[in-house]
Amino acid sequence: MHLSLNTVTVKERWGLADCIEGCARHGITGIAPWRDVLQAMGVDAAAKRIRDAGLVVTGLCRGGMFPAADAAGRAAAIEDNRRAIHEAHTIGARCLVMVCGGLPLGSKDLPAAREQVREGLHAILPEARAAGVTIALEPLHPMTCADRSVLSTLGQALDLCDELDEGTGVALDVYHVWWDPDLARQVARAGKRIAAFHVCDWKVPTTDTVFDRGIPGEGCIDIPAIRAMVTQAGYTGGFAEVEVLSKRWWAEDPDMVLPLLKQRIATSV
Amino acid sequence: MHLSLNTVTVKERWGLADCIEGCARHGITGIAPWRDVLQAMGVDAAAKRIRDAGLVVTGLCRGGMFPAADAAGRAAAIEDNRRAIHEAHTIGARCLVMVCGGLPLGSKDLPAAREQVREGLHAILPEARAAGVTIALEPLHPMTCADRSVLSTLGQALDLCDELDEGTGVALDVYHVWWDPDLARQVARAGKRIAAFHVCDWKVPTTDTVFDRGIPGEGCIDIPAIRAMVTQAGYTGGFAEVEVLSKRWWAEDPDMVLPLLKQRIATSV
Repeated sequence: MHLSLNTVTVKERWGLADCIEGCARHGITGIAPWRDVLQAMGVDAAAKRIRDAGLVVTGLCRGGMFPAADAAGRAAAIEDNRRAIHEAHTIGARCLVMVCGGLPLGSKDLPAAREQVREGLHAILPEARAAGVTIALEPLHPMTCADRSVLSTLGQALDLCDELDEGTGVALDVYHVWWDPDLARQVARAGKRIAAFHVCDWKVPTTDTVFDRGIPGEGCIDIPAIRAMVTQAGYTGGFAEVEVLSKRWWAEDPDMVLPLLKQRIATSV
Repeated sequence: MHLSLNTVTVKERWGLADCIEGCARHGITGIAPWRDVLQAMGVDAAAKRIRDAGLVVTGLCRGGMFPAADAAGRAAAIEDNRRAIHEAHTIGARCLVMVCGGLPLGSKDLPAAREQVREGLHAILPEARAAGVTIALEPLHPMTCADRSVLSTLGQALDLCDELDEGTGVALDVYHVWWDPDLARQVARAGKRIAAFHVCDWKVPTTDTVFDRGIPGEGCIDIPAIRAMVTQAGYTGGFAEVEVLSKRWWAEDPDMVLPLLKQRIATSV
């Protein structure tokens, strides 16, 4: 597989222009920007720069964050997702990755939050289809259920895909799903709906629920086994997107990190 | 429901004798010791003290930890589980709670670790049945999969119960299962096999993957909703066992914590 650089992996050191230039310098052919660095450059300018560099955009991170304490908050989230769809379309992203959102602050009503995610997705789907932007539902690790994503398993994501149908898929990150006893069955079920394949690693021990991911090979995830499932299921995207949220790796020089990631894609994915 | 005090909740301040006396002082009628404090007192002496105090032993924590890097390690784990079964029998515990174990150090082979858990359970089951000790499989939160428990969901635990049959059940801790989109269905499926009901809370944010649990009411888990599922499924044990691993709560005086827990059982469970 080819490496796609998710910009969050080097977020403390590099903006989007640095990332685009860094990819060229290190022979990396895919990129997945987060919206903050995209907007900092300007979406149209970024689209041109990325196109000129010949990079494949494996995804835009991120839409979602639907649940909110009141109707105004939920409407604002839907509006923001519409902007994200247009940004994804403008930069030619293969998909818009959905981090669906956690419980509204102070809420304990998990079924209601999940229903708000469902409603939000239904609301934005016509716009996504019209723009030709695939909505990639990303199940996040259950430890993020309260504050980031009430979408917790691949099975749950695929149930939503079944309901939403055309224009939807899943973003499968080994970090979020590796523990799932039902993983093999659900990856097979996902089939061609795997819109993005993300890799990083689970460190033992893990000292932070968000910012302590490892690079591939640094942890305990059998990434090649999951890659085999994904390939067998019908993923033909050709890219493994490296998305590492890590205080430890953010401190390193990206010009050292990128070659290491290329090497790890070859040896540990 | 009545409160049962899991001794780990006050582990920094109280040994087992203090816990037994503290339960009497605060009108608490259930206890669940960990093996370290049990062995520190001596199992026979502890059994007598607990019996004399009229306490219900809602569980013994813990058996399990089956996966190991070599056959000798796996055999030692099985031997240790046999001792735990006899301890559970001696103190009249309703069940022996199983924390099944994570990946052997350095291993990435999750299916193999799960198979080792299965084999370990089969190995100890005859002894448990002979002693009349229920083996309570406790699915642990997926964030503990690498280092504590490859048993990650209630559905997975019930699949094992289906296979192991007589003498097995599940220990259901709201902390470990609250996020599960399949929870309601699996609790109903568990039915009378719910051997223990554990409560604590998920704090937002959670700053440690092991030692940052909240007391009931302190976090975002809708405990009454899960209690209703459990009761509806057929749990008639009458106790909610409070098991709080928390550096913050360990620093407090247990004579303050226990009355607070009694109150929270009434208001937040």
